[in-house]
Amino acid sequence: MNRLFLLLTLIFIPHCQAFASDQPEPVWRSLDPQNSVLMQLPHGDVVIELAPTFSPNHVNQMKELIRLGVYDNQPFYRVIDGFVAQGGPQDESTHKKATETLTLEGEWSTDSTFTFTPIQENDMFAPVTGFIKGFALGHDPANKTAWLLHCPGVIAMARGNDPDSGTSHFYITIGQATRYLDRLMSIFGRVVYGMEHVHAIQRTQVIEGDTPVEPDEHIRIVSMRMMSDIPEDERIHLEIEDTETAAYQQFLTERRHRTAPFFFKPPPPVLDICQVPVKTRIAND
Amino acid sequence: MNRLFLLLTLIFIPHCQAFASDQPEPVWRSLDPQNSVLMQLPHGDVVIELAPTFSPNHVNQMKELIRLGVYDNQPFYRVIDGFVAQGGPQDESTHKKATETLTLEGEWSTDSTFTFTPIQENDMFAPVTGFIKGFALGHDPANKTAWLLHCPGVIAMARGNDPDSGTSHFYITIGQATRYLDRLMSIFGRVVYGMEHVHAIQRTQVIEGDTPVEPDEHIRIVSMRMMSDIPEDERIHLEIEDTETAAYQQFLTERRHRTAPFFFKPPPPVLDICQVPVKTRIAND
Repeated sequence: MNRLFLLLTLIFIPHCQAFASDQPEPVWRSLDPQNSVLMQLPHGDVVIELAPTFSPNHVNQMKELIRLGVYDNQPFYRVIDGFVAQGGPQDESTHKKATETLTLEGEWSTDSTFTFTPIQENDMFAPVTGFIKGFALGHDPANKTAWLLHCPGVIAMARGNDPDSGTSHFYITIGQATRYLDRLMSIFGRVVYGMEHVHAIQRTQVIEGDTPVEPDEHIRIVSMRMMSDIPEDERIHLEIEDTETAAYQQFLTERRHRTAPFFFKPPPPVLDICQVPVKTRIAND
Repeated sequence: MNRLFLLLTLIFIPHCQAFASDQPEPVWRSLDPQNSVLMQLPHGDVVIELAPTFSPNHVNQMKELIRLGVYDNQPFYRVIDGFVAQGGPQDESTHKKATETLTLEGEWSTDSTFTFTPIQENDMFAPVTGFIKGFALGHDPANKTAWLLHCPGVIAMARGNDPDSGTSHFYITIGQATRYLDRLMSIFGRVVYGMEHVHAIQRTQVIEGDTPVEPDEHIRIVSMRMMSDIPEDERIHLEIEDTETAAYQQFLTERRHRTAPFFFKPPPPVLDICQVPVKTRIAND
Protein backbone atom coordinates (compact mmCIF):
# COMPACT_ATOMS: atom_id res chain seq x y z
CA MET A 1 0.00 0.00 0.00
CA ASN A 2 1.61 3.24 -0.99
CA ARG A 3 1.66 6.33 1.18
CA LEU A 4 -0.95 8.23 -0.81
CA PHE A 5 -3.45 5.41 -0.63
CA LEU A 6 -2.93 5.16 3.10
CA LEU A 7 -3.43 8.90 3.39
CA LEU A 8 -6.68 8.78 1.44
CA THR A 9 -8.09 6.10 3.68
CA LEU A 10 -7.23 8.08 6.78
CA ILE A 11 -8.28 11.54 5.75
CA PHE A 12 -11.35 12.83 7.47
CA ILE A 13 -13.32 9.71 8.15
CA PRO A 14 -15.53 10.54 11.19
CA HIS A 15 -18.70 10.56 9.08
CA CYS A 16 -18.15 6.90 8.27
CA GLN A 17 -17.09 6.00 11.79
CA ALA A 18 -20.46 7.13 13.08
CA PHE A 19 -21.79 3.93 11.54
CA ALA A 20 -18.89 1.69 12.48
CA SER A 21 -19.41 -1.97 13.13
CA ASP A 22 -19.52 -1.71 16.92
CA GLN A 23 -22.88 0.05 16.60
CA PRO A 24 -26.14 -1.85 16.46
CA GLU A 25 -27.72 -2.15 13.04
CA PRO A 26 -30.39 0.46 12.34
CA VAL A 27 -33.99 -0.67 12.49
CA TRP A 28 -35.88 0.12 9.29
CA ARG A 29 -39.52 0.81 8.44
CA SER A 30 -41.02 0.71 4.96
CA LEU A 31 -42.03 3.99 3.37
CA ASP A 32 -45.80 3.99 2.88
CA PRO A 33 -46.61 4.39 -0.86
CA GLN A 34 -49.94 5.99 0.13
CA ASN A 35 -48.06 8.80 1.84
CA SER A 36 -45.10 9.32 -0.43
CA VAL A 37 -44.60 11.27 -3.62
CA LEU A 38 -42.29 10.66 -6.56
CA MET A 39 -41.20 13.99 -8.04
CA GLN A 40 -39.35 13.53 -11.29
CA LEU A 41 -36.96 16.33 -12.18
CA PRO A 42 -35.09 16.50 -15.48
CA HIS A 43 -31.87 15.61 -13.66
CA GLY A 44 -33.11 12.97 -11.19
CA ASP A 45 -35.83 11.49 -9.00
CA VAL A 46 -36.89 12.87 -5.64
CA VAL A 47 -39.07 11.09 -3.08
CA ILE A 48 -41.05 13.00 -0.46
CA GLU A 49 -42.60 11.47 2.61
CA LEU A 50 -45.83 13.25 3.52
CA ALA A 51 -46.80 14.00 7.11
CA PRO A 52 -50.56 13.36 7.45
CA THR A 53 -50.25 12.97 11.21
CA PHE A 54 -49.11 16.58 11.59
CA SER A 55 -50.61 18.47 8.64
CA PRO A 56 -53.58 16.38 7.47
CA ASN A 57 -55.36 19.08 5.48
CA HIS A 58 -52.26 20.17 3.59
CA VAL A 59 -51.44 16.55 2.83
CA ASN A 60 -54.96 15.90 1.57
CA GLN A 61 -54.90 18.94 -0.69
CA MET A 62 -51.45 18.04 -2.03
CA LYS A 63 -52.59 14.51 -2.82
CA GLU A 64 -55.59 15.87 -4.68
CA LEU A 65 -53.51 18.39 -6.66
CA ILE A 66 -50.87 15.80 -7.47
CA ARG A 67 -53.55 13.46 -8.80
CA LEU A 68 -54.96 16.30 -10.92
CA GLY A 69 -51.52 16.71 -12.50
CA VAL A 70 -51.33 20.32 -11.34
CA TYR A 71 -47.54 20.21 -10.88
CA ASP A 72 -46.56 18.39 -14.05
CA ASN A 73 -44.39 20.54 -16.30
CA GLN A 74 -44.56 23.43 -13.81
CA PRO A 75 -41.43 25.35 -12.83
CA PHE A 76 -39.40 26.04 -9.75
CA TYR A 77 -39.69 29.79 -10.31
CA ARG A 78 -38.21 31.09 -7.06
CA VAL A 79 -35.01 29.33 -6.14
CA ILE A 80 -32.64 31.16 -3.81
CA ASP A 81 -29.36 29.51 -2.88
CA GLY A 82 -29.15 28.71 0.81
CA PHE A 83 -32.88 29.27 1.30
CA VAL A 84 -35.68 27.62 -0.70
CA ALA A 85 -36.69 26.12 -4.04
CA GLN A 86 -40.28 27.21 -4.60
CA GLY A 87 -42.57 25.84 -7.28
CA GLY A 88 -46.18 25.77 -8.31
CA PRO A 89 -48.63 25.99 -11.18
CA GLN A 90 -48.18 29.02 -13.44
CA ASP A 91 -51.18 28.26 -15.62
CA GLU A 92 -54.21 29.95 -14.15
CA SER A 93 -56.64 27.52 -15.73
CA THR A 94 -54.90 24.70 -13.96
CA HIS A 95 -54.44 26.70 -10.82
CA LYS A 96 -58.17 27.25 -10.50
CA LYS A 97 -58.44 23.62 -9.64
CA ALA A 98 -56.65 24.54 -6.43
CA THR A 99 -58.35 27.63 -5.14
CA GLU A 100 -59.16 26.24 -1.74
CA THR A 101 -57.13 28.17 0.79
CA LEU A 102 -55.84 26.17 3.69
CA THR A 103 -55.90 26.99 7.37
CA LEU A 104 -52.37 27.07 8.74
CA GLU A 105 -51.13 23.82 10.23
CA GLY A 106 -48.08 25.30 11.88
CA GLU A 107 -48.24 23.70 15.33
CA TRP A 108 -50.48 21.45 17.37
CA SER A 109 -51.44 20.93 21.00
CA THR A 110 -49.95 18.07 22.95
CA ASP A 111 -51.34 16.11 25.86
CA SER A 112 -49.84 13.84 28.48
CA THR A 113 -49.60 10.97 25.99
CA PHE A 114 -47.28 12.91 23.67
CA THR A 115 -44.04 11.01 23.13
CA PHE A 116 -41.08 11.48 20.83
CA THR A 117 -37.34 10.78 20.63
CA PRO A 118 -35.74 13.78 22.36
CA ILE A 119 -32.65 15.30 20.77
CA GLN A 120 -31.79 18.57 22.49
CA GLU A 121 -32.98 21.12 25.01
CA ASN A 122 -32.75 24.87 24.41
CA ASP A 123 -31.45 25.00 20.86
CA MET A 124 -32.31 28.74 20.67
CA PHE A 125 -35.49 28.23 18.67
CA ALA A 126 -37.27 25.57 20.74
CA PRO A 127 -37.30 24.49 24.40
CA VAL A 128 -36.96 20.87 23.25
CA THR A 129 -36.34 19.22 19.88
CA GLY A 130 -36.89 15.63 18.86
CA PHE A 131 -37.99 13.16 16.20
CA ILE A 132 -41.23 11.36 15.51
CA LYS A 133 -40.81 8.81 12.72
CA GLY A 134 -37.95 10.81 11.25
CA PHE A 135 -39.75 14.15 11.32
CA ALA A 136 -37.88 16.83 13.27
CA LEU A 137 -40.08 18.70 15.71
CA GLY A 138 -39.97 21.34 18.40
CA HIS A 139 -41.84 21.03 21.66
CA ASP A 140 -42.80 23.55 24.29
CA PRO A 141 -43.77 21.58 27.41
CA ALA A 142 -44.94 24.72 29.24
CA ASN A 143 -47.42 25.67 26.55
CA LYS A 144 -48.12 22.07 25.52
CA THR A 145 -47.43 22.66 21.84
CA ALA A 146 -45.30 20.97 19.19
CA TRP A 147 -44.41 21.83 15.59
CA LEU A 148 -42.37 20.54 12.67
CA LEU A 149 -38.99 22.21 12.10
CA HIS A 150 -37.59 23.95 9.03
CA CYS A 151 -34.61 21.65 8.67
CA PRO A 152 -33.11 21.31 5.19
CA GLY A 153 -35.25 19.20 2.89
CA VAL A 154 -38.68 19.86 4.35
CA ILE A 155 -41.55 20.74 2.04
CA ALA A 156 -44.02 23.40 3.16
CA MET A 157 -46.80 25.44 1.63
CA ALA A 158 -46.04 28.99 0.50
CA ARG A 159 -48.54 31.63 1.52
CA GLY A 160 -49.26 35.37 1.55
CA ASN A 161 -49.31 37.55 4.66
CA ASP A 162 -52.54 35.89 5.77
CA PRO A 163 -51.45 32.77 7.66
CA ASP A 164 -54.39 30.90 6.14
CA SER A 165 -53.69 31.71 2.50
CA GLY A 166 -51.70 28.69 1.27
CA THR A 167 -53.16 26.87 -1.73
CA SER A 168 -50.79 24.96 -4.03
CA HIS A 169 -47.39 26.64 -4.26
CA PHE A 170 -44.78 24.92 -2.15
CA TYR A 171 -41.14 25.31 -1.21
CA ILE A 172 -38.40 22.88 -0.26
CA THR A 173 -35.72 24.22 2.08
CA ILE A 174 -32.24 23.97 0.58
CA GLY A 175 -29.92 25.82 2.93
CA GLN A 176 -29.04 26.19 6.55
CA ALA A 177 -32.23 25.56 8.52
CA THR A 178 -34.56 28.58 8.30
CA ARG A 179 -35.81 27.99 11.80
CA TYR A 180 -37.26 31.51 12.11
CA LEU A 181 -40.09 30.21 9.90
CA ASP A 182 -41.00 27.47 12.40
CA ARG A 183 -44.67 27.52 13.45
CA LEU A 184 -45.40 30.23 10.86
CA MET A 185 -45.70 27.90 7.88
CA SER A 186 -47.34 24.54 7.20
CA ILE A 187 -44.68 21.89 6.76
CA PHE A 188 -46.31 18.80 5.31
CA GLY A 189 -43.46 16.47 4.35
CA ARG A 190 -39.76 15.96 3.88
CA VAL A 191 -37.44 14.75 1.17
CA VAL A 192 -36.24 11.22 1.95
CA TYR A 193 -34.49 10.44 -1.35
CA GLY A 194 -32.73 12.48 -4.05
CA MET A 195 -32.07 15.62 -1.99
CA GLU A 196 -28.94 16.16 -4.10
CA HIS A 197 -31.22 16.77 -7.08
CA VAL A 198 -33.15 19.42 -5.14
CA HIS A 199 -29.81 21.07 -4.33
CA ALA A 200 -29.04 21.11 -8.06
CA ILE A 201 -32.21 22.95 -9.15
CA GLN A 202 -31.35 26.04 -11.21
CA ARG A 203 -31.32 29.14 -9.01
CA THR A 204 -33.60 31.90 -10.25
CA GLN A 205 -32.26 34.77 -8.16
CA VAL A 206 -28.78 36.11 -8.84
CA ILE A 207 -26.63 38.56 -6.92
CA GLU A 208 -26.63 42.26 -7.79
CA GLY A 209 -24.87 42.87 -11.07
CA ASP A 210 -24.88 39.26 -12.26
CA THR A 211 -26.59 37.94 -15.40
CA PRO A 212 -30.29 37.37 -14.71
CA VAL A 213 -31.72 33.88 -15.12
CA GLU A 214 -34.49 33.89 -17.71
CA PRO A 215 -37.78 32.10 -17.03
CA ASP A 216 -37.08 29.61 -19.81
CA GLU A 217 -34.03 28.46 -17.81
CA HIS A 218 -36.14 27.57 -14.77
CA ILE A 219 -36.23 23.87 -14.01
CA ARG A 220 -39.61 22.28 -14.60
CA ILE A 221 -41.03 19.35 -12.68
CA VAL A 222 -41.42 16.50 -15.15
CA SER A 223 -44.14 14.89 -13.06
CA MET A 224 -45.36 14.45 -9.52
CA ARG A 225 -47.14 11.20 -8.68
CA MET A 226 -48.35 9.52 -5.54
CA MET A 227 -46.10 6.48 -5.19
CA SER A 228 -49.17 4.28 -4.73
CA ASP A 229 -50.45 5.36 -8.18
CA ILE A 230 -47.30 4.09 -9.88
CA PRO A 231 -47.10 0.46 -11.03
CA GLU A 232 -45.35 -1.59 -8.39
CA ASP A 233 -42.36 -2.40 -10.58
CA GLU A 234 -41.76 1.27 -11.44
CA ARG A 235 -41.77 2.52 -7.85
CA ILE A 236 -38.72 3.40 -5.81
CA HIS A 237 -39.03 1.12 -2.79
CA LEU A 238 -37.51 2.79 0.23
CA GLU A 239 -36.98 2.08 3.88
CA ILE A 240 -36.43 4.76 6.50
CA GLU A 241 -34.41 4.45 9.66
CA ASP A 242 -36.77 4.12 12.61
CA THR A 243 -36.04 6.90 15.10
CA GLU A 244 -38.07 5.24 17.87
CA THR A 245 -35.66 2.42 18.65
CA ALA A 246 -32.87 1.56 21.07
CA ALA A 247 -30.48 1.38 18.11
CA TYR A 248 -31.23 4.98 17.18
CA GLN A 249 -30.85 6.05 20.80
CA GLN A 250 -27.41 4.50 20.86
CA PHE A 251 -26.52 6.23 17.59
CA LEU A 252 -27.58 9.55 19.16
CA THR A 253 -25.58 8.92 22.31
CA GLU A 254 -22.43 8.17 20.35
CA ARG A 255 -22.96 11.19 18.13
CA ARG A 256 -23.38 13.42 21.16
CA HIS A 257 -20.29 12.03 22.90
CA ARG A 258 -17.82 11.38 20.12
CA THR A 259 -14.95 9.10 21.06
CA ALA A 260 -13.36 8.37 17.67
CA PRO A 261 -9.60 9.16 17.61
CA PHE A 262 -10.30 11.82 14.99
CA PHE A 263 -11.88 13.97 17.72
CA PHE A 264 -8.68 14.76 19.57
CA LYS A 265 -10.72 17.06 21.81
CA PRO A 266 -14.43 16.51 22.28
CA PRO A 267 -17.00 18.81 20.65
CA PRO A 268 -19.70 20.26 22.94
CA PRO A 269 -22.09 17.38 23.90
CA VAL A 270 -25.02 18.85 21.99
CA LEU A 271 -26.93 17.90 18.85
CA ASP A 272 -28.32 20.23 16.20
CA ILE A 273 -31.41 18.27 15.20
CA CYS A 274 -31.20 19.57 11.64
CA GLN A 275 -27.72 18.04 11.38
CA VAL A 276 -28.68 14.62 12.78
CA PRO A 277 -29.17 12.14 9.93
CA VAL A 278 -32.13 9.81 9.56
CA LYS A 279 -31.02 7.32 6.95
CA THR A 280 -32.90 6.02 3.94
CA ARG A 281 -32.06 2.87 1.99
CA ILE A 282 -33.36 1.09 -1.08
CA ALA A 283 -35.58 -1.76 0.06
CA ASN A 284 -34.13 -5.15 -0.70
CA ASP A 285 -37.19 -6.95 -2.00
CA MET B 1 -53.73 42.58 -12.72
CA ASN B 2 -55.28 39.16 -12.53
CA ARG B 3 -55.67 37.24 -9.34
CA LEU B 4 -52.90 34.77 -10.05
CA PHE B 5 -50.35 37.48 -10.71
CA LEU B 6 -51.34 39.20 -7.49
CA LEU B 7 -51.01 35.90 -5.67
CA LEU B 8 -47.55 35.30 -7.07
CA THR B 9 -46.35 38.71 -5.97
CA LEU B 10 -47.66 38.13 -2.46
CA ILE B 11 -46.55 34.61 -1.82
CA PHE B 12 -43.78 34.20 0.66
CA ILE B 13 -41.81 37.37 0.25
CA PRO B 14 -40.07 37.93 3.61
CA HIS B 15 -36.65 37.12 2.17
CA CYS B 16 -36.99 40.06 -0.16
CA GLN B 17 -38.45 42.28 2.50
CA ALA B 18 -35.32 41.86 4.57
CA PHE B 19 -33.71 44.22 2.08
CA ALA B 20 -36.67 46.56 1.62
CA SER B 21 -36.16 50.22 0.80
CA ASP B 22 -36.55 51.51 4.35
CA GLN B 23 -33.24 49.90 5.22
CA PRO B 24 -29.93 51.66 4.77
CA GLU B 25 -27.90 50.62 1.77
CA PRO B 26 -25.24 48.03 2.56
CA VAL B 27 -21.65 49.20 2.72
CA TRP B 28 -19.38 47.24 0.39
CA ARG B 29 -15.70 46.36 0.38
CA SER B 30 -13.75 45.08 -2.61
CA LEU B 31 -12.63 41.47 -2.57
CA ASP B 32 -8.82 41.39 -2.54
CA PRO B 33 -7.54 39.54 -5.65
CA GLN B 34 -4.40 38.57 -3.67
CA ASN B 35 -6.59 36.64 -1.23
CA SER B 36 -9.24 35.16 -3.45
CA VAL B 37 -9.36 32.06 -5.63
CA LEU B 38 -11.25 31.36 -8.83
CA MET B 39 -12.23 27.69 -8.95
CA GLN B 40 -13.62 26.73 -12.33
CA LEU B 41 -15.94 23.74 -12.31
CA PRO B 42 -17.37 22.20 -15.48
CA HIS B 43 -20.77 23.67 -14.61
CA GLY B 44 -19.80 27.12 -13.29
CA ASP B 45 -17.35 29.43 -11.55
CA VAL B 46 -16.80 29.56 -7.80
CA VAL B 47 -14.91 32.28 -5.93
CA ILE B 48 -13.36 31.65 -2.52
CA GLU B 49 -12.17 34.36 -0.16
CA LEU B 50 -9.14 33.19 1.81
CA ALA B 51 -8.67 33.99 5.50
CA PRO B 52 -4.98 34.83 6.01
CA THR B 53 -5.76 36.70 9.22
CA PHE B 54 -7.06 33.54 10.88
CA SER B 55 -5.22 30.65 9.18
CA PRO B 56 -2.07 32.17 7.66
CA ASN B 57 -0.12 28.93 7.19
CA HIS B 58 -2.96 27.09 5.52
CA VAL B 59 -3.59 30.06 3.25
CA ASN B 60 0.08 30.25 2.30
CA GLN B 61 0.24 26.54 1.49
CA MET B 62 -2.97 26.72 -0.55
CA LYS B 63 -1.63 29.67 -2.53
CA GLU B 64 1.55 27.75 -3.28
CA LEU B 65 -0.33 24.60 -4.31
CA ILE B 66 -2.76 26.55 -6.44
CA ARG B 67 0.14 28.23 -8.23
CA LEU B 68 1.74 24.81 -8.82
CA GLY B 69 -1.47 23.70 -10.53
CA VAL B 70 -1.92 20.86 -8.04
CA TYR B 71 -5.73 21.05 -8.15
CA ASP B 72 -6.22 21.39 -11.90
CA ASN B 73 -8.15 18.43 -13.34
CA GLN B 74 -8.40 16.81 -9.90
CA PRO B 75 -11.69 15.37 -8.63
CA PHE B 76 -14.13 15.95 -5.85
CA TYR B 77 -13.85 12.32 -4.80
CA ARG B 78 -15.78 12.39 -1.52
CA VAL B 79 -19.04 14.27 -1.82
CA ILE B 80 -21.75 13.50 0.72
CA ASP B 81 -25.07 15.27 0.46
CA GLY B 82 -25.74 17.50 3.44
CA PHE B 83 -22.13 17.29 4.60
CA VAL B 84 -19.04 18.08 2.49
CA ALA B 85 -17.57 18.12 -0.99
CA GLN B 86 -13.96 17.01 -0.60
CA GLY B 87 -11.31 17.23 -3.28
CA GLY B 88 -7.58 17.00 -3.77
CA PRO B 89 -4.78 15.70 -5.94
CA GLN B 90 -4.99 11.99 -6.79
CA ASP B 91 -1.74 11.85 -8.69
CA GLU B 92 1.03 10.99 -6.29
CA SER B 93 3.73 12.63 -8.39
CA THR B 94 1.83 15.90 -8.16
CA HIS B 95 0.94 15.32 -4.56
CA LYS B 96 4.58 15.05 -3.57
CA LYS B 97 4.85 18.74 -4.20
CA ALA B 98 2.59 19.14 -1.17
CA THR B 99 4.06 16.90 1.48
CA GLU B 100 4.43 19.59 4.09
CA THR B 101 2.02 18.79 6.90
CA LEU B 102 0.41 21.77 8.53
CA THR B 103 -0.04 22.51 12.20
CA LEU B 104 -3.74 22.88 13.00
CA GLU B 105 -5.08 26.43 12.87
CA GLY B 106 -8.36 25.66 14.58
CA GLU B 107 -8.61 28.53 17.05
CA TRP B 108 -6.60 31.45 18.29
CA SER B 109 -6.11 33.44 21.49
CA THR B 110 -7.77 36.80 21.89
CA ASP B 111 -6.71 39.81 23.90
CA SER B 112 -8.47 42.92 25.14
CA THR B 113 -8.28 44.51 21.69
CA PHE B 114 -10.37 41.72 20.08
CA THR B 115 -13.43 43.15 18.38
CA PHE B 116 -16.08 41.70 16.10
CA THR B 117 -19.73 42.15 15.16
CA PRO B 118 -21.64 40.08 17.72
CA ILE B 119 -24.53 37.94 16.50
CA GLN B 120 -25.71 35.64 19.26
CA GLU B 121 -24.93 34.38 22.74
CA ASN B 122 -25.18 30.71 23.69
CA ASP B 123 -26.00 29.12 20.36
CA MET B 124 -25.24 25.64 21.83
CA PHE B 125 -21.80 25.37 20.23
CA ALA B 126 -20.24 28.70 21.26
CA PRO B 127 -20.67 31.17 24.13
CA VAL B 128 -20.74 34.01 21.58
CA THR B 129 -20.87 34.13 17.78
CA GLY B 130 -20.10 37.01 15.46
CA PHE B 131 -18.57 38.21 12.20
CA ILE B 132 -15.22 39.66 11.27
CA LYS B 133 -15.18 40.82 7.66
CA GLY B 134 -17.89 38.34 6.78
CA PHE B 135 -16.22 35.36 8.43
CA ALA B 136 -18.41 33.66 11.04
CA LEU B 137 -16.61 33.00 14.29
CA GLY B 138 -17.16 31.69 17.77
CA HIS B 139 -15.71 33.35 20.84
CA ASP B 140 -15.18 32.14 24.38
CA PRO B 141 -14.56 35.24 26.52
CA ALA B 142 -13.75 33.15 29.61
CA ASN B 143 -10.96 31.25 27.90
CA LYS B 144 -10.02 34.14 25.60
CA THR B 145 -10.25 32.09 22.41
CA ALA B 146 -11.94 32.49 19.04
CA TRP B 147 -12.40 30.21 16.02
CA LEU B 148 -13.98 30.14 12.58
CA LEU B 149 -17.30 28.30 12.30
CA HIS B 150 -18.34 25.43 10.05
CA CYS B 151 -21.18 27.31 8.40
CA PRO B 152 -22.21 26.15 4.91
CA GLY B 153 -19.70 27.21 2.26
CA VAL B 154 -16.54 27.28 4.30
CA ILE B 155 -13.41 25.62 2.95
CA ALA B 156 -11.17 23.73 5.37
CA MET B 157 -8.26 21.31 5.18
CA ALA B 158 -8.96 17.60 5.52
CA ARG B 159 -6.68 15.68 7.83
CA GLY B 160 -6.07 12.30 9.46
CA ASN B 161 -6.50 11.57 13.16
CA ASP B 162 -3.41 13.64 13.93
CA PRO B 163 -4.67 17.23 14.22
CA ASP B 164 -1.49 18.40 12.47
CA SER B 165 -1.73 16.15 9.43
CA GLY B 166 -3.44 18.36 6.82
CA THR B 167 -1.55 18.85 3.56
CA SER B 168 -3.53 19.59 0.39
CA HIS B 169 -6.92 17.85 0.42
CA PHE B 170 -9.74 20.21 1.29
CA TYR B 171 -13.49 20.13 1.81
CA ILE B 172 -16.27 22.64 1.32
CA THR B 173 -19.27 22.30 3.64
CA ILE B 174 -22.52 21.81 1.72
CA GLY B 175 -25.18 21.02 4.30
CA GLN B 176 -26.54 22.14 7.60
CA ALA B 177 -23.64 23.62 9.55
CA THR B 178 -21.37 20.83 10.86
CA ARG B 179 -20.57 22.82 13.94
CA TYR B 180 -19.29 19.78 15.85
CA LEU B 181 -16.15 20.14 13.70
CA ASP B 182 -15.50 23.68 14.98
CA ARG B 183 -12.00 24.17 16.43
CA LEU B 184 -11.02 20.67 15.29
CA MET B 185 -10.26 21.58 11.68
CA SER B 186 -8.44 24.42 9.93
CA ILE B 187 -10.95 26.58 8.10
CA PHE B 188 -9.06 28.87 5.74
CA GLY B 189 -11.69 30.51 3.56
CA ARG B 190 -15.28 30.69 2.44
CA VAL B 191 -17.20 30.62 -0.82
CA VAL B 192 -18.39 34.13 -1.70
CA TYR B 193 -19.66 33.44 -5.23
CA GLY B 194 -21.11 30.45 -7.07
CA MET B 195 -22.12 28.39 -4.03
CA GLU B 196 -24.96 26.96 -6.13
CA HIS B 197 -22.31 25.25 -8.28
CA VAL B 198 -20.74 23.68 -5.19
CA HIS B 199 -24.20 22.41 -4.23
CA ALA B 200 -24.48 20.83 -7.69
CA ILE B 201 -21.24 18.80 -7.51
CA GLN B 202 -21.91 15.11 -8.24
CA ARG B 203 -22.31 13.19 -4.99
CA THR B 204 -19.96 10.23 -4.68
CA GLN B 205 -21.66 8.41 -1.80
CA VAL B 206 -25.06 6.82 -2.33
CA ILE B 207 -27.50 5.29 0.11
CA GLU B 208 -27.50 1.56 0.83
CA GLY B 209 -28.82 -0.38 -2.13
CA ASP B 210 -28.55 2.44 -4.67
CA THR B 211 -26.41 2.40 -7.81
CA PRO B 212 -22.81 3.29 -6.93
CA VAL B 213 -21.24 6.36 -8.53
CA GLU B 214 -18.16 5.38 -10.49
CA PRO B 215 -14.94 7.39 -10.17
CA ASP B 216 -15.20 8.52 -13.79
CA GLU B 217 -18.45 10.29 -12.86
CA HIS B 218 -16.73 12.40 -10.20
CA ILE B 219 -16.65 16.10 -10.99
CA ARG B 220 -13.16 17.40 -11.74
CA ILE B 221 -11.93 20.89 -11.01
CA VAL B 222 -11.13 22.51 -14.35
CA SER B 223 -8.67 24.90 -12.74
CA MET B 224 -7.93 26.78 -9.56
CA ARG B 225 -6.18 30.14 -9.89
CA MET B 226 -5.32 32.99 -7.57
CA MET B 227 -7.54 35.83 -8.79
CA SER B 228 -4.49 38.12 -8.86
CA ASP B 229 -2.78 35.80 -11.37
CA ILE B 230 -5.65 36.14 -13.83
CA PRO B 231 -5.59 38.98 -16.38
CA GLU B 232 -7.63 41.89 -15.05
CA ASP B 233 -10.27 41.66 -17.75
CA GLU B 234 -10.87 37.94 -17.12
CA ARG B 235 -11.35 38.23 -13.37
CA ILE B 236 -14.68 38.19 -11.56
CA HIS B 237 -14.70 41.50 -9.72
CA LEU B 238 -16.66 41.16 -6.50
CA GLU B 239 -17.66 43.29 -3.57
CA ILE B 240 -18.60 41.88 -0.19
CA GLU B 241 -21.01 43.38 2.29
CA ASP B 242 -19.05 44.96 5.12
CA THR B 243 -20.18 43.42 8.41
CA GLU B 244 -18.49 46.11 10.50
CA THR B 245 -20.91 48.94 9.75
CA ALA B 246 -23.97 50.62 11.22
CA ALA B 247 -25.95 49.53 8.18
CA TYR B 248 -25.18 45.88 8.87
CA GLN B 249 -26.06 46.36 12.53
CA GLN B 250 -29.44 47.69 11.50
CA PHE B 251 -29.93 44.77 9.13
CA LEU B 252 -29.17 42.41 12.03
CA THR B 253 -31.56 44.19 14.37
CA GLU B 254 -34.41 44.00 11.87
CA ARG B 255 -33.66 40.35 11.16
CA ARG B 256 -33.72 39.57 14.87
CA HIS B 257 -36.95 41.46 15.46
CA ARG B 258 -39.01 40.85 12.36
CA THR B 259 -41.91 43.23 11.90
CA ALA B 260 -43.03 42.48 8.32
CA PRO B 261 -46.76 41.64 8.12
CA PHE B 262 -45.80 38.17 6.91
CA PHE B 263 -44.65 37.36 10.45
CA PHE B 264 -48.09 37.31 12.04
CA LYS B 265 -46.44 36.18 15.26
CA PRO B 266 -42.81 36.97 15.96
CA PRO B 267 -40.14 34.27 15.76
CA PRO B 268 -37.80 33.97 18.77
CA PRO B 269 -35.47 37.02 18.78
CA VAL B 270 -32.36 35.00 18.05
CA LEU B 271 -30.03 34.63 15.07
CA ASP B 272 -28.36 31.48 13.81
CA ILE B 273 -25.11 32.95 12.50
CA CYS B 274 -24.90 30.31 9.77
CA GLN B 275 -28.26 31.49 8.47
CA VAL B 276 -27.39 35.22 8.47
CA PRO B 277 -26.46 36.33 4.96
CA VAL B 278 -23.42 38.40 4.07
CA LYS B 279 -24.10 39.58 0.55
CA THR B 280 -21.80 39.59 -2.46
CA ARG B 281 -22.30 41.66 -5.61
CA ILE B 282 -20.55 42.07 -8.92
CA ALA B 283 -18.42 45.21 -8.77
CA ASN B 284 -19.65 47.95 -11.04
CA ASP B 285 -16.40 49.14 -12.58
